[in-house]
Amino acid sequence: MLHVSARPIVGEALGTAMLLAIVVGSGIMGESLADGNVGIALLANSLATGAGLVVLVLVFGPISGAHFNPVVSVLEASRGALSMRDAALRCAAQLVGACLGVLVAHAMFEHALVVVSPHARVGFGQAVGEAVATFGLVGVVTVLPRRRPEATALAVGAYITSAYWFTSSTSFANPAVTLARTLTDTFTGIRPDDVPLFLVGQVAGGVLGAFVFGWLAPAKEPA
Amino acid sequence: MLHVSARPIVGEALGTAMLLAIVVGSGIMGESLADGNVGIALLANSLATGAGLVVLVLVFGPISGAHFNPVVSVLEASRGALSMRDAALRCAAQLVGACLGVLVAHAMFEHALVVVSPHARVGFGQAVGEAVATFGLVGVVTVLPRRRPEATALAVGAYITSAYWFTSSTSFANPAVTLARTLTDTFTGIRPDDVPLFLVGQVAGGVLGAFVFGWLAPAKEPA
Amino acid sequence: MLHVSARPIVGEALGTAMLLAIVVGSGIMGESLADGNVGIALLANSLATGAGLVVLVLVFGPISGAHFNPVVSVLEASRGALSMRDAALRCAAQLVGACLGVLVAHAMFEHALVVVSPHARVGFGQAVGEAVATFGLVGVVTVLPRRRPEATALAVGAYITSAYWFTSSTSFANPAVTLARTLTDTFTGIRPDDVPLFLVGQVAGGVLGAFVFGWLAPAKEPA
Amino acid sequence: MLHVSARPIVGEALGTAMLLAIVVGSGIMGESLADGNVGIALLANSLATGAGLVVLVLVFGPISGAHFNPVVSVLEASRGALSMRDAALRCAAQLVGACLGVLVAHAMFEHALVVVSPHARVGFGQAVGEAVATFGLVGVVTVLPRRRPEATALAVGAYITSAYWFTSSTSFANPAVTLARTLTDTFTGIRPDDVPLFLVGQVAGGVLGAFVFGWLAPAKEPA
Repeated sequence: MLHVSARPIVGEALGTAMLLAIVVGSGIMGESLADGNVGIALLANSLATGAGLVVLVLVFGPISGAHFNPVVSVLEASRGALSMRDAALRCAAQLVGACLGVLVAHAMFEHALVVVSPHARVGFGQAVGEAVATFGLVGVVTVLPRRRPEATALAVGAYITSAYWFTSSTSFANPAVTLARTLTDTFTGIRPDDVPLFLVGQVAGGVLGAFVFGWLAPAKEPA
Repeated sequence: MLHVSARPIVGEALGTAMLLAIVVGSGIMGESLADGNVGIALLANSLATGAGLVVLVLVFGPISGAHFNPVVSVLEASRGALSMRDAALRCAAQLVGACLGVLVAHAMFEHALVVVSPHARVGFGQAVGEAVATFGLVGVVTVLPRRRPEATALAVGAYITSAYWFTSSTSFANPAVTLARTLTDTFTGIRPDDVPLFLVGQVAGGVLGAFVFGWLAPAKEPA
Repeated sequence: MLHVSARPIVGEALGTAMLLAIVVGSGIMGESLADGNVGIALLANSLATGAGLVVLVLVFGPISGAHFNPVVSVLEASRGALSMRDAALRCAAQLVGACLGVLVAHAMFEHALVVVSPHARVGFGQAVGEAVATFGLVGVVTVLPRRRPEATALAVGAYITSAYWFTSSTSFANPAVTLARTLTDTFTGIRPDDVPLFLVGQVAGGVLGAFVFGWLAPAKEPA
Repeated sequence: MLHVSARPIVGEALGTAMLLAIVVGSGIMGESLADGNVGIALLANSLATGAGLVVLVLVFGPISGAHFNPVVSVLEASRGALSMRDAALRCAAQLVGACLGVLVAHAMFEHALVVVSPHARVGFGQAVGEAVATFGLVGVVTVLPRRRPEATALAVGAYITSAYWFTSSTSFANPAVTLARTLTDTFTGIRPDDVPLFLVGQVAGGVLGAFVFGWLAPAKEPA
């Protein structure tokens, strides 16, 4: 019994760890090779993250549903697809995994394993960016599994690649990712002081998205 | 009744708003990070728009058909797949949504919400570019839904990424998008004076495409 | 009768025209925006061509089989899937279409419509490059339609994006494309003097590929 | 009999040769066009390799299973899907093919056919990078064929594009590729002295991945 139900929790922790290793690792590599051109660094970072997410959703989808994001797990719980206890366990696993993934990225690139990020990300515009990013992500994870499940992985990866560029905040759209990225003194870090406004944007966009896309694409087709 | 039929109209407005937030937002980010290299800015803008369109067509396809473009809605009406009233409502929704999407992009990046674009896009070559771009897009939306519906989203996104580069006008190919982009003083804007020739190109290419691809891929297979 | 059989020939001409408009058009745009960095120009050119090819194969696949290439049409004829007369008509249509596509690109960018290319592409290594490029392309068009037909469009586009980079000749791999590209004084042109060696490489690689992949993936599974 | 069973071995040799021609060839082209910006060179190299791998897995999947990697063949043997003799033959074919592929790349670009690489890749962090890269690759080739076989090719290509960026070692993740890349004095080479630590990382990551993903996604669904 325990054995079986542990798989999705371990899957969420491992998948989120791999996601952060991808985000932070490709950020370090992109910045170090781009010769000062941040556009090239973000091209690398956004393509590596998007392609990596396609793979992670394909690999972990059959294992844990591939949430990697407390917003998604809470959304599933609010729809009754997950118990509150399962959702809470998943959120904890995501946060632990995310922090471990940052450590793995630092180990690969021989950085200090944990550093408090000094990377300022300020301004109300970035909170709007996070709200827009999370709103759209909720649209993807609401509609695709119901209507085009085989395209979910591609849609998630393509969405994040796009959102890195079209939002002013480069689309964190994920509280576990946001908190873990306070632990890196690199291109992809975020100063702890700037986290609360990001979380407010994510919650606002997530709640709005749940209502709007819940109405646009109901679980049961309208008669 | 009203409730049910409102979904596609709201879907067209919201999807077109998200499209413009993607186009204008990724243009702002691309230009600001590219350190003066417009090639890098357009790489970012074209990849973000193409990836974003794949997602928007997947998300809004089951909701509204994911037109986002008066050319497509009028085409569907001309084929009898849509009433004239529905097509007109969709065009209005697309235009309203497109303008709102520009505002959202400006809000995210803390620009003035509405500015009349000074971005000149002149010359007969760009009208030819718009005709070619719209001709090809009509080919995609004519053939794919009839012959390979599951690949429509990928085809639309890949087409626009490509057309940003191969047309001299960077492929607006959409009257609602064209009008909305007069409201932004950024990389992706267009001066109101230059809009009429763009629209002429789009209509010419659209009509030609409807005839050519209607003959090449008839709704019913030839006996 | 005539009406029905004209579709694939017109489809081949139009599809090949669009392919050349994409190749040459995105080459012009890439070069003009890359600020002297040829790497950025070829990134744009290779991504636009690959994405465009995915779309063209999806659109014209159900219309004409989407050959766009005399190597492919002759290969199909050699396997008895096409009459010699049909193959010859297709080759003629591809060549005419390819030249028209170059004109369309020039019209969009307001270049002189026809110019003899001064772009030197010399050296035995580039002939080896064309042989390798065509060998691989024959592998794709031999195996995919037999074993994974729904993935053919993606494979063709991804192959050409890759081959632009991994071959020394930037992978023309197509006699109609090679001849048409003598008509443009841009990044993607080729001097007429350099065409014969390119064609030799293409024929050698194509013949070798037909034998190797015909044996590796026979039309009928081995018992 | 011999005729039939030779196909997969020849397929592994040819497919791995094409993989190395892609890796090394696009590395040469990328470096020569990037005007000193290594970020642009690696963007080209990673996109060309990823796109090329999607194609190679689609083409050679039905012929040989598209391993191209001793780690994958040994993994299959350890699961009983392949005899030890078959796995050994495949490993030999992969190594021979990989070396031939490097020669083909050099021939295309008119480099000396065989050179011992002076390209230093040192530090424990890069061994961690190889372990992470191989761990993830084992996840992809364990889970996808069991749960989403039609997406395996896309997942392998997207994974490698991403891993070029997120690992400190640019993700060799393949002993045959690692050995063959000692034969090139280019961007993608590796000094023979640095090979052992890369192999240690690959074996460690591969073994760990086999256990972890074998438990997360067992061949038979848990009851």
